[in-house]
Amino acid sequence: MITMRKFLAIDAGGTRTRAAVIDAASQVLGVGRAGSGNPTSAGVDGAVDGIATCAERAFAAAAIPADDVAMTLIALAGIESPTFEGHLLDRLASSGFHGTIRIESDLLGTYFSGTCEPNGYALIAGTGAVAARVTHGELELVSGGTGWLVGDAGSGFWIGHQVVRTVAAALDGQHGPTALTQMLSTTLGLQQTTDLEQGRPRLLSRMIDELYALRPVELSRFAPLAFAAPDDSAAGAIIESAIDELIALVSVVLDSRRPGPIVLGGSVLKQGFFGQGHDELARRFGDRLTMRAPGAPQVVVSDGLTGAAVLALRAVGIPVGQDVFPSLREQLTMPGER
Amino acid sequence: MITMRKFLAIDAGGTRTRAAVIDAASQVLGVGRAGSGNPTSAGVDGAVDGIATCAERAFAAAAIPADDVAMTLIALAGIESPTFEGHLLDRLASSGFHGTIRIESDLLGTYFSGTCEPNGYALIAGTGAVAARVTHGELELVSGGTGWLVGDAGSGFWIGHQVVRTVAAALDGQHGPTALTQMLSTTLGLQQTTDLEQGRPRLLSRMIDELYALRPVELSRFAPLAFAAPDDSAAGAIIESAIDELIALVSVVLDSRRPGPIVLGGSVLKQGFFGQGHDELARRFGDRLTMRAPGAPQVVVSDGLTGAAVLALRAVGIPVGQDVFPSLREQLTMPGER
Repeated sequence: MITMRKFLAIDAGGTRTRAAVIDAASQVLGVGRAGSGNPTSAGVDGAVDGIATCAERAFAAAAIPADDVAMTLIALAGIESPTFEGHLLDRLASSGFHGTIRIESDLLGTYFSGTCEPNGYALIAGTGAVAARVTHGELELVSGGTGWLVGDAGSGFWIGHQVVRTVAAALDGQHGPTALTQMLSTTLGLQQTTDLEQGRPRLLSRMIDELYALRPVELSRFAPLAFAAPDDSAAGAIIESAIDELIALVSVVLDSRRPGPIVLGGSVLKQGFFGQGHDELARRFGDRLTMRAPGAPQVVVSDGLTGAAVLALRAVGIPVGQDVFPSLREQLTMPGER
Repeated sequence: MITMRKFLAIDAGGTRTRAAVIDAASQVLGVGRAGSGNPTSAGVDGAVDGIATCAERAFAAAAIPADDVAMTLIALAGIESPTFEGHLLDRLASSGFHGTIRIESDLLGTYFSGTCEPNGYALIAGTGAVAARVTHGELELVSGGTGWLVGDAGSGFWIGHQVVRTVAAALDGQHGPTALTQMLSTTLGLQQTTDLEQGRPRLLSRMIDELYALRPVELSRFAPLAFAAPDDSAAGAIIESAIDELIALVSVVLDSRRPGPIVLGGSVLKQGFFGQGHDELARRFGDRLTMRAPGAPQVVVSDGLTGAAVLALRAVGIPVGQDVFPSLREQLTMPGER
């Protein structure tokens, strides 16, 4: 009996990592899941640990020894470092994996999670925001992804930052009242009070203490508050600006002479604009995108694992076409997240 | 011979601290100068050191022993901590000062550097931005000053941040070309190049490395670039937004039923809008302010030392009125900075 070659595909995200063992016929043998596998958000050691834990769980789910896997492909945000790759190889070797590692951009992972077309576009809005033009299956042009301080308008950080600034301005007399104040207070575990302390609202002082204790990127955790208050005018204005920013971002890479599907990923798109119960927002975002790219299919994906699998198979010379892609996607999309 | 009582007034700023020994007749006996005296920007130890060094220089300039001084008043941004005050008292005691220490808000220091009227307004735009209504010589209402992450729109940080974001967007294809790119590159010591690296401009990658290595508030050092390129449309738009933000900030505290002078301080106002060669900007800012507070005198001050002296004398029961204020201000304003 000939044993079919097996591969490990990993989507290493900032808050969640998923891995799948697949075979050369695009069959999924087992899936594993762990926390952050991203060196930027978890540090090198944390990311190595997240990815290795996730890999071990996938091997266990597939009920195969790690040594049966010939190659591991990781879709990862940001630029990998030799240190990271070395540490990861050592750590996976201790789990019994002795194949090769290949790292690809999470932009391609996201893109190929939504389509197997070689030409098209990806827009990711998670903690950060980045857009890409994919040509012949490779990144031709990338815009955004420059981080919270320098860019990433429309991202989760950016929306969370606007929420926080709006609430501070409301408490400080620079902005009218907003439902976001109560929501942010609750999220931070602060009691709403109108007490003054040295001529300033005590709530504002306490909020400032809490917020400056966070790493700036952590403000992305407040982005869902804007999506949860669609009838609040301040929240609505933030969401509207985020649409403007994200449409402007993807417009940089769109080229009407190169039609193709637009794959949308990241928590701001998947759980925000296209989240459950946000039909009106989804319609507005979709319409704005259609105005910029009429006729282009728009595909929302929940993560980049399908794409990582496509990239793994492609790396070993097995192109994934329309014949197997839908089944691969079906197998790797999380239950309830189609 | 009766020795007149002597006092030490200190304006402890984020980048510069000045101190003056004055007597009960509002005569300035000596002035000292040192670096940062602000715990937020220099840390507690750094600030204590800056203030004490500055005090020693003022004692030396006045040619008096520290022990001759009965009281030290410090005008300081932010809220002092007991730790800071304790450390400072110990350190000044080792210089021979055995009097009392009193700390007042830099808002009052700035305000009383421009006027001796008991009722009026102050707007400070330096690294941060804050506005206050002064009533009966005390802070009645304060807005802003919530820091770079949560507020301070229109501040030096905010302007520098906009400069950096605009340049990154221009290099990233999200914004048209701007003169700020060349200026920021030069300031960061980076050579302008149009080389690409992994589908991105190499200059952008190097810029990102430099900028994320800074503490965020340090972006305020790029604010002068916007003021230095008044004919660049991107720089002009940043300046215009800063005017909007600062006028909105001071509008929170303005009350037409309580007329009074508006004192303007901080590097963004003193060196930016009202800086040398910026007559057109000064006129625009002044006109906008006049629209909000018709008839109110507008006074630009270079720091808060005069105000610290006014507060020191007031603290010992010597009110400073129109008879001595102009002379005090004249003596304490730095040469060439009237």
